[in-house]
Amino acid sequence: MDRLHAAQIADAVNSGQTSALAVVEDVIARLAEYDEVQPQAWISRAEAETLRARARDIDAQVKAGTHLPLAGVPFAVKDNIDAIGFDTTAGCPDYAYAATSNATVVQKALDAGAILVGKTNLDQFATGLNGSRSPYGAPRCVFNRAYVSGGSSSGSAVTTAAGLVAFAFGTDTAGSGRVPAAFNHLTGYKPTKGRWSTTGLVPACRTLDCISVFTEDPKDAALVDSVVGGYDAKDEYSRDLPPVARPVRRIGVASQLNWCGDIHSEYLYARALERLIGMGFEVVEIDLAPLSAAAALLYSGPWVAERTAAIADFLKASPASIDSTVRQIVEGGLTVTGVETFDGHYKLAGYKRYAEELWDDIDILMLPTAPTIYRVKEMQASPLALNANLGLYTNFVNLLDMAAVAVPAGFRPNGTGFGITFIGSAATDNALLDFASQWNGHNAYARPDYDLTQESRMDTIKLSVVG
Amino acid sequence: MDRLHAAQIADAVNSGQTSALAVVEDVIARLAEYDEVQPQAWISRAEAETLRARARDIDAQVKAGTHLPLAGVPFAVKDNIDAIGFDTTAGCPDYAYAATSNATVVQKALDAGAILVGKTNLDQFATGLNGSRSPYGAPRCVFNRAYVSGGSSSGSAVTTAAGLVAFAFGTDTAGSGRVPAAFNHLTGYKPTKGRWSTTGLVPACRTLDCISVFTEDPKDAALVDSVVGGYDAKDEYSRDLPPVARPVRRIGVASQLNWCGDIHSEYLYARALERLIGMGFEVVEIDLAPLSAAAALLYSGPWVAERTAAIADFLKASPASIDSTVRQIVEGGLTVTGVETFDGHYKLAGYKRYAEELWDDIDILMLPTAPTIYRVKEMQASPLALNANLGLYTNFVNLLDMAAVAVPAGFRPNGTGFGITFIGSAATDNALLDFASQWNGHNAYARPDYDLTQESRMDTIKLSVVG
Repeated sequence: MDRLHAAQIADAVNSGQTSALAVVEDVIARLAEYDEVQPQAWISRAEAETLRARARDIDAQVKAGTHLPLAGVPFAVKDNIDAIGFDTTAGCPDYAYAATSNATVVQKALDAGAILVGKTNLDQFATGLNGSRSPYGAPRCVFNRAYVSGGSSSGSAVTTAAGLVAFAFGTDTAGSGRVPAAFNHLTGYKPTKGRWSTTGLVPACRTLDCISVFTEDPKDAALVDSVVGGYDAKDEYSRDLPPVARPVRRIGVASQLNWCGDIHSEYLYARALERLIGMGFEVVEIDLAPLSAAAALLYSGPWVAERTAAIADFLKASPASIDSTVRQIVEGGLTVTGVETFDGHYKLAGYKRYAEELWDDIDILMLPTAPTIYRVKEMQASPLALNANLGLYTNFVNLLDMAAVAVPAGFRPNGTGFGITFIGSAATDNALLDFASQWNGHNAYARPDYDLTQESRMDTIKLSVVG
Repeated sequence: MDRLHAAQIADAVNSGQTSALAVVEDVIARLAEYDEVQPQAWISRAEAETLRARARDIDAQVKAGTHLPLAGVPFAVKDNIDAIGFDTTAGCPDYAYAATSNATVVQKALDAGAILVGKTNLDQFATGLNGSRSPYGAPRCVFNRAYVSGGSSSGSAVTTAAGLVAFAFGTDTAGSGRVPAAFNHLTGYKPTKGRWSTTGLVPACRTLDCISVFTEDPKDAALVDSVVGGYDAKDEYSRDLPPVARPVRRIGVASQLNWCGDIHSEYLYARALERLIGMGFEVVEIDLAPLSAAAALLYSGPWVAERTAAIADFLKASPASIDSTVRQIVEGGLTVTGVETFDGHYKLAGYKRYAEELWDDIDILMLPTAPTIYRVKEMQASPLALNANLGLYTNFVNLLDMAAVAVPAGFRPNGTGFGITFIGSAATDNALLDFASQWNGHNAYARPDYDLTQESRMDTIKLSVVG
């Protein structure tokens, strides 16, 4: 399956090479085809006729001379983000409400000519990094459906990776916009906190939540950023962040990494590191321990209470409506005390100081996006421990006020994607996206076939890593 | 009693007009005199011989050609701030420990040639705005000892107001560096959070605490600021804050004020406002309600748990060692939940947004420093409610990331001081101090006699407000 490129589509529609209607007809055909494979990637979807009407409207605007930066670009929205015409479920049917306005980022994308295809599946209340915690079914890795898609933005990653949309909004509190990018060979861009408005988002941890985007490459992510970013007075956590220039010369890498036993990840990471050195960058070893200690505050510390705060009324009124694993996590926050919460803030202030000083020695940090991947069955058997492993290299990023771009870095022999993430200090987003583009331009990986069988393929695909 | 001026003393010592030793001999005589009146202003003090030795050392440095910005300037330190040679008690004898290093601000003042006279009394653990919550006795208003001195930096205000030192460090979490300035006719400068290091401070609410200073006028406060301010990598809440220029033209005032029945405060405030208008400034009415709502988070909301966190171990080990009113407040934080704490942060984010937008309409905010003053006896009879009244116009300032300078604005007929506070957005400290100097230069108030009798004077002093 070929993937869709936002910039290419917008250029083609704006220049009249193609029409938004033609793009939409193609998307409708793709949707029908992939509905045979993973219908659970979606929670709700626009009618074909609605898509066509919208495309005709875009075509009329373009014909009238309006340049639309996302003209005719099909996109999807994670179902914890409001979009008029759809319920927002947050992955929980009993929680659902009809959206009465568009989230700011959705509105901006629409204003720029993008076409909203539908709302995507997620780990309920965006709690999880694997994708299996949803009553709407578990989306799976597009290359091998025995494996998890990654989450919590599971459906957004799958719909983008399957070529059904050119970009999809996810959210990213602990890595939800990056882990599924790795597994499905996508770019996952998580802006600096406050760079994109979160107005219209069901909160997970409100002080940490970011809306993110999945795209085929970092250039498309930069295009979406240029359209949907910016200060929003309606969002109390929005920030007016002047871009920080940060030419990349020194790349920080962890002096020790835990691969959770995955030798394929370890090999692919070593290859990626070799390539970066080959590209002429200086590699600086750093101690990851303080960042990992910060990460522990999120699921083993007071920030669990922030997840509880997000749905406290619903948890009280309808506990049985909540996925049992999600409920177990969220109920954990009920016993956190205020004293512990302030103590957690003090600890975090210490880790932040360490992180700030890091940027004196390095320009960006490069880490594996996730150390390994698990089968859906494995994940269901051990939902907390295995999920925690997936977040080893993503959990600390928002707590420590960093931006991140996850990029592909090869495939395991079983066909699942492996990725690395470039992480920068607050407001270095432009520099990070440029750097990620440079990486992508130098490193093409031969993509294995998509897994389109009804039976998940076995774990035996042979694939040589190319590049 | 004449007061001491930091800049004048430093100039005189640096230029050889006087010596640090002569300054110290004068201070020793003043101390002896005021010890007959309010010895409880101090918790501990340097020996006379220690002061003389220190003065000789300063004189030698000056003679050797070293210019010291605070040469020979006597100062005091609130006893929740570490200074080598003294115990730090935080107003609680059982909590006391011998300081093994100087707080950063103390070290900087000493490096600049200032002479540390002693450690001052305070509301225990800096919890209170009145000054009566200390086992070391209740310091009282220097003009009428029937009345509270204001707190929690009670001793620092009294020692400065009584002319025993030229400046004294206080601390200010909820108004502790401003309320006592008002009652004792002083300048009380509370820097923007993070502008002055808090290394070496016993925390009250660690995310909000500021070290502050009492001086005779705003110019002396600016001098101390220039010496002790600046980023400190050891303090996790220190901030690298480029000064924000803010020429003052529009002054925000509250559309409604609660005077707690004090018609004298109301009159003096009206006079101050008239004078500001007379000085050519534009007055803009603002709604104080969102700021007051933010203030409620401090003592009626989750931030109480931050006070609990500050002394949690001590509270558990030695509850009987804690002042009963202070203990009642601090124990209140034990029942605050993590969920409530995060909810409090969300509310605060909303109030912050309101506050940020205020600065589009006004350059500074002018409020009474405190609505009224109480007798020590009244305060002891109703320690929580009356204390809360004192903080009506100070409590929100640190929560909303503002800087403040309290300045004198006259005297009540009973001799106690009334003050107003100029409040600015973060990092506008220089502009605020300049403005406060301008105010002081235009407004001299005839000071009533000091209350030096052993019996507190009656409430019948007649004093005409001049100026």
